[in-house]
Amino acid sequence: MKAAIIAIGDELLIGQTIDTNSAWIGNYLYEHNIEVVENRSISDKKDDIIRTIEEVKSLCDIVLITGGLGPTKDDITKETLAEYFGTTLRFHEQTFERLTEILTNFGREPKESHRLQCHLPIDCEILPNRMGTAPGMLFRSGEQMFVSMPGVPYEMKSIMEHEVMPRLSPRVSEAIYHKTIMTSGEGESVIADMISPIVDHLSPHLSVAYLPSLGTVRIRITARGQERATLQSEVDHAVEQVVDILGPIAYGYNDLSLEEHLMHLCNKHNLMLTTAESCTGGYVGHKITSRSGSSSYFVGGIVSYSNEQKVKHLGVKTDTLMQHGAVSSETVTEMATGALSFADADISVSISGIAGPTGGTEEKPVGLIWMSIASSSHPSHTFKIMASKNRKLNIEYAANKAFDMLRRYITKHYG
Amino acid sequence: MKAAIIAIGDELLIGQTIDTNSAWIGNYLYEHNIEVVENRSISDKKDDIIRTIEEVKSLCDIVLITGGLGPTKDDITKETLAEYFGTTLRFHEQTFERLTEILTNFGREPKESHRLQCHLPIDCEILPNRMGTAPGMLFRSGEQMFVSMPGVPYEMKSIMEHEVMPRLSPRVSEAIYHKTIMTSGEGESVIADMISPIVDHLSPHLSVAYLPSLGTVRIRITARGQERATLQSEVDHAVEQVVDILGPIAYGYNDLSLEEHLMHLCNKHNLMLTTAESCTGGYVGHKITSRSGSSSYFVGGIVSYSNEQKVKHLGVKTDTLMQHGAVSSETVTEMATGALSFADADISVSISGIAGPTGGTEEKPVGLIWMSIASSSHPSHTFKIMASKNRKLNIEYAANKAFDMLRRYITKHYG
Repeated sequence: MKAAIIAIGDELLIGQTIDTNSAWIGNYLYEHNIEVVENRSISDKKDDIIRTIEEVKSLCDIVLITGGLGPTKDDITKETLAEYFGTTLRFHEQTFERLTEILTNFGREPKESHRLQCHLPIDCEILPNRMGTAPGMLFRSGEQMFVSMPGVPYEMKSIMEHEVMPRLSPRVSEAIYHKTIMTSGEGESVIADMISPIVDHLSPHLSVAYLPSLGTVRIRITARGQERATLQSEVDHAVEQVVDILGPIAYGYNDLSLEEHLMHLCNKHNLMLTTAESCTGGYVGHKITSRSGSSSYFVGGIVSYSNEQKVKHLGVKTDTLMQHGAVSSETVTEMATGALSFADADISVSISGIAGPTGGTEEKPVGLIWMSIASSSHPSHTFKIMASKNRKLNIEYAANKAFDMLRRYITKHYG
Repeated sequence: MKAAIIAIGDELLIGQTIDTNSAWIGNYLYEHNIEVVENRSISDKKDDIIRTIEEVKSLCDIVLITGGLGPTKDDITKETLAEYFGTTLRFHEQTFERLTEILTNFGREPKESHRLQCHLPIDCEILPNRMGTAPGMLFRSGEQMFVSMPGVPYEMKSIMEHEVMPRLSPRVSEAIYHKTIMTSGEGESVIADMISPIVDHLSPHLSVAYLPSLGTVRIRITARGQERATLQSEVDHAVEQVVDILGPIAYGYNDLSLEEHLMHLCNKHNLMLTTAESCTGGYVGHKITSRSGSSSYFVGGIVSYSNEQKVKHLGVKTDTLMQHGAVSSETVTEMATGALSFADADISVSISGIAGPTGGTEEKPVGLIWMSIASSSHPSHTFKIMASKNRKLNIEYAANKAFDMLRRYITKHYG
């Protein structure tokens, strides 16, 4: 079964909003063996909506539309779909009741704009929205399905899971199997060269994709065919060969994040981790705690942004800062050691760098970042990286590098 | 002038990568008066690439293509474009020299995959890539332009800024003007109802869009026409009326983030800020320090994830934790006060909540988050919010709420 996704909204075209919905839907459908053939972002204009539906319906069995169903006046999706499918709008009492109930729970009353939202096309299935006020709508034309959902991500997701997928899954037939190898610490080219002896000799129904981000590369091996069991054993065999060649560069499978891998390692060795962040400003802590269960290995940390904080709480010597500066091997080493006692932790990582875009010197350019790992039972490991001129990229890269080096440190010293 | 954006890559369709490039390009073109009529994400397949170019070229003057130019085997964009424009590939010496130079700077040598990357179409303009190895390509067909760029965001941006825009800007004619009002603390419906007396009576060439995120709503007013000066005064007049009605809900203009607004307020009143984060795990610090210049008002903070950290460093009483728990009015109040002396700061915000998805109880459900603001010269302000069941949303919402309450607190007490 094939699907196309249409995201409606001028805000997408002028880039005020990043379309994360289509990626989520794509991934969700992929996991359910439904192939997305195309994503489009289009304007709020009626003609564009109709032309797009006309074009994509020749490519697929199901068209998923997001956006343009909110309570405000820039949303014309509903009227356009009603017209396209030759029906009209009518006040939908049940939807208004649900909406009133939701608002009442938040101590609010329905306004005129809410009432307008409850005018819905007559000839469609209403898909209740458990997370918000605007319901989804399903139109059918022969075997084809056209679903319209609100653009608010968690509302869309809820409708996809509870209303759309139960209507799609009975119709899926063709088999697909994929496995992703997670790597960190080497670039795409190096990895591609290393594994080309395997990749160059795969059967034509197997394909390999490289998905690089800052400091990590995911390698996805996919097989398509009839028998899932056969596909799985073919992919698994190829994955095994690739992982053998990559050695310590590969750390896991199937979108296991570096943070999650780190959590497993720390839990396995009963280690409590802490962080002493300067240029990353809390981002490493944030990535760790984005995952539920992180309190099992993360006690917390300090964002020692100013030099005073580094001295007062981490015991960095004023002399060290004077002689070597905040961005130096000496300072991060003292920060990491100091962090262990600050937080009563078993292992720590410290980071101090010139995130940019300003603040660089010839000797210490923007992008220079020093890090150190200290532990209560093994020697410290201090190292530097040269990142880019871009502040956000540098913060992201530094955090990923910290996780990469932590996982290697723990594997080396703790087994 | 009109543009269409095509993002190539199976990883986009199966949602392993979120297409942030199209949003960036859309915004960049919008600021340069170029209208994006459509974004598409398509597969790495030759037929899809050709069909898509055929379809979109009837909609626009320039087609911008990203992705599918990397060194690995899943990238077939280059060959497809060469075929479509009736040319062939040839080894491009200059590109190989540049690439060798870049690699040498990183202490590496060119590999076979790098050499392959330097086979480029003969009949196109090569657009040098200052940030990476794969150059862009520009094909012309009559007045129309077709640009292909690598998918790595900072490489694409560099090529857009240095190579593409200088070739486009001389051709832009039609005028567009927009202004965005930034608000926080109220939802889209409430705001739409408040300002409908203004919005309902705007001229037809003015349009209003609401762009909600967690805890904030941007209101964008756009005018299109011939004379930029007229458009500007019309939009500015409407904006003024809207802001008058919104009062303290509106805090700024044109994508001024809450963090940036907070920086201005703190700088104005000479306040140094600190954070004591529990459930947000460093995210508030990260948002603050994502902006260059944040050291002018942010000394750093503590991620007091465990109860021990709260007691040891912030002076939260063991009794308080025993009687009221870590997620309580009493605990966050003590955390905020303790943070002031911990960091020698003038103002602080503390956050403790049940981020979820597990850990909730009947009395303290997932999504309950307490916060407190303390200052060296004004009474503390402690409050709670009820967020959702989703961990990431809760962290994002809590951070935005912290910024919203901080800006209101400072405006109230410091003027």
